[in-house]
Amino acid sequence: MTVSSSLDSLAVSEIRKLVVDCCRQHGGGHGGSAVGMAPLAVALWRHVLRYNPRSPSWAARDRFVLSNGHAAILLYSVLHIAGYEQFSMDQLRGYGHPKPFGYETHCFAHPEIEFDGVEITTGPLGQGIANAVGLAIAQKQLAATYARPAFENLVPSRIFCASGDGCLMEGVALEAMALAGNFGLDNLILLYDNNEVTCDGPLSWIVTEGTNAKIRAMGWRIINVFDGDTDVSVLVNAIEIAKTYSGKPTMINIRTTIGFGTDKAGTAGAHHGTFSDADVERLTDGTDRPTHYVLPAVYEYFSEAGRRGAGLQQEWEHIIDEYSVAYPNEARELCSRLSGKPIDYRSLLADITIPDTIQAAREINGYVFRALFNKVPSMFAGGADLWGANKLGADHHVIFGPGSYEGRIARYGIREHAMAAISNGISAFQPGAFIPITATFLMFYLYAAPGVRMGALNSLQVIHVATHDSFQEGQNGPTHQPVELDSLLRAMPNFLYMRPSSAEEIIGCWEVALREQKTSTMISVARDPAVYPPQGTCREKTLLGGYILEERADAVVTLVSRGSALGYAQAAAETLTAAHRIACRVVSIPCISLFEAQSEQYKQRVLGSARRIVSVEEYVPTVWARLCTASIGMDSFGYSASGPNNYGRFGLDVEGIVGKVSRYVAESEIRHWQQL
Amino acid sequence: MTVSSSLDSLAVSEIRKLVVDCCRQHGGGHGGSAVGMAPLAVALWRHVLRYNPRSPSWAARDRFVLSNGHAAILLYSVLHIAGYEQFSMDQLRGYGHPKPFGYETHCFAHPEIEFDGVEITTGPLGQGIANAVGLAIAQKQLAATYARPAFENLVPSRIFCASGDGCLMEGVALEAMALAGNFGLDNLILLYDNNEVTCDGPLSWIVTEGTNAKIRAMGWRIINVFDGDTDVSVLVNAIEIAKTYSGKPTMINIRTTIGFGTDKAGTAGAHHGTFSDADVERLTDGTDRPTHYVLPAVYEYFSEAGRRGAGLQQEWEHIIDEYSVAYPNEARELCSRLSGKPIDYRSLLADITIPDTIQAAREINGYVFRALFNKVPSMFAGGADLWGANKLGADHHVIFGPGSYEGRIARYGIREHAMAAISNGISAFQPGAFIPITATFLMFYLYAAPGVRMGALNSLQVIHVATHDSFQEGQNGPTHQPVELDSLLRAMPNFLYMRPSSAEEIIGCWEVALREQKTSTMISVARDPAVYPPQGTCREKTLLGGYILEERADAVVTLVSRGSALGYAQAAAETLTAAHRIACRVVSIPCISLFEAQSEQYKQRVLGSARRIVSVEEYVPTVWARLCTASIGMDSFGYSASGPNNYGRFGLDVEGIVGKVSRYVAESEIRHWQQL
Repeated sequence: MTVSSSLDSLAVSEIRKLVVDCCRQHGGGHGGSAVGMAPLAVALWRHVLRYNPRSPSWAARDRFVLSNGHAAILLYSVLHIAGYEQFSMDQLRGYGHPKPFGYETHCFAHPEIEFDGVEITTGPLGQGIANAVGLAIAQKQLAATYARPAFENLVPSRIFCASGDGCLMEGVALEAMALAGNFGLDNLILLYDNNEVTCDGPLSWIVTEGTNAKIRAMGWRIINVFDGDTDVSVLVNAIEIAKTYSGKPTMINIRTTIGFGTDKAGTAGAHHGTFSDADVERLTDGTDRPTHYVLPAVYEYFSEAGRRGAGLQQEWEHIIDEYSVAYPNEARELCSRLSGKPIDYRSLLADITIPDTIQAAREINGYVFRALFNKVPSMFAGGADLWGANKLGADHHVIFGPGSYEGRIARYGIREHAMAAISNGISAFQPGAFIPITATFLMFYLYAAPGVRMGALNSLQVIHVATHDSFQEGQNGPTHQPVELDSLLRAMPNFLYMRPSSAEEIIGCWEVALREQKTSTMISVARDPAVYPPQGTCREKTLLGGYILEERADAVVTLVSRGSALGYAQAAAETLTAAHRIACRVVSIPCISLFEAQSEQYKQRVLGSARRIVSVEEYVPTVWARLCTASIGMDSFGYSASGPNNYGRFGLDVEGIVGKVSRYVAESEIRHWQQL
Repeated sequence: MTVSSSLDSLAVSEIRKLVVDCCRQHGGGHGGSAVGMAPLAVALWRHVLRYNPRSPSWAARDRFVLSNGHAAILLYSVLHIAGYEQFSMDQLRGYGHPKPFGYETHCFAHPEIEFDGVEITTGPLGQGIANAVGLAIAQKQLAATYARPAFENLVPSRIFCASGDGCLMEGVALEAMALAGNFGLDNLILLYDNNEVTCDGPLSWIVTEGTNAKIRAMGWRIINVFDGDTDVSVLVNAIEIAKTYSGKPTMINIRTTIGFGTDKAGTAGAHHGTFSDADVERLTDGTDRPTHYVLPAVYEYFSEAGRRGAGLQQEWEHIIDEYSVAYPNEARELCSRLSGKPIDYRSLLADITIPDTIQAAREINGYVFRALFNKVPSMFAGGADLWGANKLGADHHVIFGPGSYEGRIARYGIREHAMAAISNGISAFQPGAFIPITATFLMFYLYAAPGVRMGALNSLQVIHVATHDSFQEGQNGPTHQPVELDSLLRAMPNFLYMRPSSAEEIIGCWEVALREQKTSTMISVARDPAVYPPQGTCREKTLLGGYILEERADAVVTLVSRGSALGYAQAAAETLTAAHRIACRVVSIPCISLFEAQSEQYKQRVLGSARRIVSVEEYVPTVWARLCTASIGMDSFGYSASGPNNYGRFGLDVEGIVGKVSRYVAESEIRHWQQL
């Protein structure tokens, strides 16, 4: 590998000029960090990274995550120079553009996963670091699983992550970094752009701690680069040293100057905005240069890296060919995973029969999970220290970690947010190669919510398993009992929140979760066996999101419900129909979003023609109002009492439902939606 | 202070026995940590804490937070023995009880704020540590503000916080602890119950880092207690040493045995469950002791601490009397704050006139904030490194920190979750003494959501200021543009999410936020000036949550909207009425929760008699369906483009609204709610 200091310097200044041009073209952008990190970009894309711009999704490439996603224009600029066609100069001209409808660009303010060279969408600080930890877990797991004599590391990718000060303050990053230390992820190199400035002012205003000492204590190695502003070779050397380390992840703490060489250099003002004419003049040494122009010598200099990558890819493909001869079964499985081939979930699920002795939804769910997990090598699961309570464990499962990277169970500790964001990274490693699964109590997914959202936004398949999903969980009380969280999850685009009531529906929900390769999902189940087990539930119909559980031609009320509330609703319908002469139909809607995606005709048929449609659930009814004329639910936090008592307390037991529905039916006029 | 090793030992074993009795009485509880921490409880309540059980809310008491809230039965037991009447033995008998409706107890599975001796509700791990940092900030700020010669520390409270391993893994705690280090909070002592066990198994499964080194790097002092199982005096000594330290917070790392002396001692099995007969026998040395019985000598021994506290309170009241003579104005203000007297927000707000030159909602909001902040000493505000973009800053504001603890602006850094949880602690210090205010972009309140929720659950007045509250914010793109978060905030009990559209409504929302002393609120505003500034908004009517903006007797459609969407709705109504002969009324509902709390009659009048009620907002419509027959909103994530272009892109500009409403009116039948 050739490090030419003059060409490197030229490349650095050309990138800086391009960044400045792009930030000036529509009057703004996040240029300061991008200018500051230009030498790092040259070090990575010219000297370090394994990549082939003509084959951007080559499985054995190195992965780069820009955790400080606001520096996106640096990534676009270097990907352009490195030969990624999606980042043409025309595309770069779209950066910062107001973009009226119909205008297309790949250069958004934050990098988005759908474009070559962008491994994952970043922007909310801290997420990218956790994503990188996930990518590193994926690499370790895949490499260990398929390693055989003479084929020790079939997927030799390293994970590089750039981060600013902001990411390192965020709890999600701190959780993830502790896990990277625990897991000994020596394939992970964090490049800390230490420019000592944040949005509001100097870093010293808000960080006084010993960052290196803190991260070293978390099981990381630290390399300091005291001047990252100009010398590319010192950065390359630091990274090459980091690559020789084993057993621990490495952070390279790189002191840079935000907006280096511009008027606002070293100040918070450089963080966001545009650049001055004087800045341009300085960057071009006063020569008259066109904007959006990069010297051919720099393209040429970078093309060597692309050719190197193409060669590495050829070598790798050759190794895979040899592996296919030596280990045909393993190779078939590996290649199938790397190509993203869907698993045959239908036949896997058809094989499952739940023993009658298993009653609680969380236990049934655990049974289904284990049956799948034992047969699907791409499933990688982990919990946040409630693995036992989530009922997902089995003695023979191998735990992922030093000495057993082939393990498919991760112990995430009490780090919910990192768990979700890491799982996004695992899923993003290579589409379809992994199906990550997370687990904790539903309430604690509120801690994980920003990570859950980013999974949905990234169109990543991640399956979240939530147990203890209402006040049915009992004694833990309001701090542990979600009443409002489902409203967030149901409103989240590209996310399916599913709340099955029975073994049949649980199996149906797993089918949805496994089927949806571009969507994050949640399977949410109750802690305890149902007091009134719902009758007539159906796995096939669950795939439609909702279906008729009990039809009555003369119905005056349709009761709509799900999860642990469904049995109460069904029992109440029976009482209302038999004892109160109020004929009730019953509908189960385990997943509102899926149901709403069905045809208008189907939805009308399921919701029926009874004038009154009443939802019954242990949550604050919000999105239910879309489907119903009235709701029975919560308007307060929960209570520390046994599950059955809570149903009585909050008027959601059979007596409560019967009373409320009876009174509702007695009202002659149906006003707008009302909470009963 | 007398440390009697024999009485201390007796007290420890009596507490352990009481804990065991309470966990056995209804077949379960979180007894393991409680048993393990019994010596710490004796050290604190017998020897260290300033408290008066007969005057539990004495302002100058020490504060104790049980961050590992699942160990609640320890807190209840020691509060009982220390003489807190609310925790009578009868109450303790309610711990773990299934609690059918009507059954009352103060002993829930997690400690709840409404009872004496419980400073704040805890349970979700990590929150309590951040709350404690908030309490410590409150003490420092109050002490510095009212300190005068000869009255150097009028509020000499210290903050003690107990935590398990779990809290120390959570990002929120790590963020908060970094801030405690930054702020040099030497009034804060964290008592780490290091029992090396978590729910799922040994701690070494999930924590391999150097905890002490990490926390020391965060600016803390560390004291190790290598055996916290039996010797109370070593704990007392450690705490007394910690109290002599200045300039930094201290963590005492106390090695304990979970479930000490019981069958499951030292194992994860001790974490939750009941205790065996053998455990009881061991604890009572085989003597035949009744359950729920504490030896009189132990009550007597603790009563000395209560008497000491009563004496300290008398001394303090005497000092306040002297202060009132020497500094009557300061004393009046301090006493008013400590008594929780509401501020005269109405007259403060009446004085505010917004200059016409200020157009953007976030800038108007900043103007109102500053006008209030400069006059209300109990307001304590801080942002998460977007203070400039939130437009809340002013040059003359003093920043809270070492050397200027009288400052009322905190720089929380990029630590949103800690910001919210810390603000809960500030609010909890003494009801009404502080009105904490947080600030960041709306999207990043998703990071803070678990803290926001706990503020609402604790009935704490905290005002969250969110700017950049929709895709109107423009270029940052979908990672920064909330479309689903409002659904969570609107569903959250005891929380008011308010989205004002104009200066009038912003002032109205501040009145609500200042008025509601038992509720957390959010004022959510747009980044940019409105393209169509709404006409006819009213601060007084904003107090009702929603009101008629434009009445039309012949209306066939009511358009309901708010925030930055309202102007578009109003302009569309004009076009529909004038150019399309579709007469439209316009309703502004800045706060749905407040509106829903009004009388049925008022709500009917505002919503009107037009058959079609259509909501217009840049969010995924969920709770709108409660009020409307159809909604215009989002069903996807946002887009990186200018604000005005996004309105066009998503069909929420005037043309889009007009088109959708026209088509909706043309349909003869109104089906269930629909998204247009």
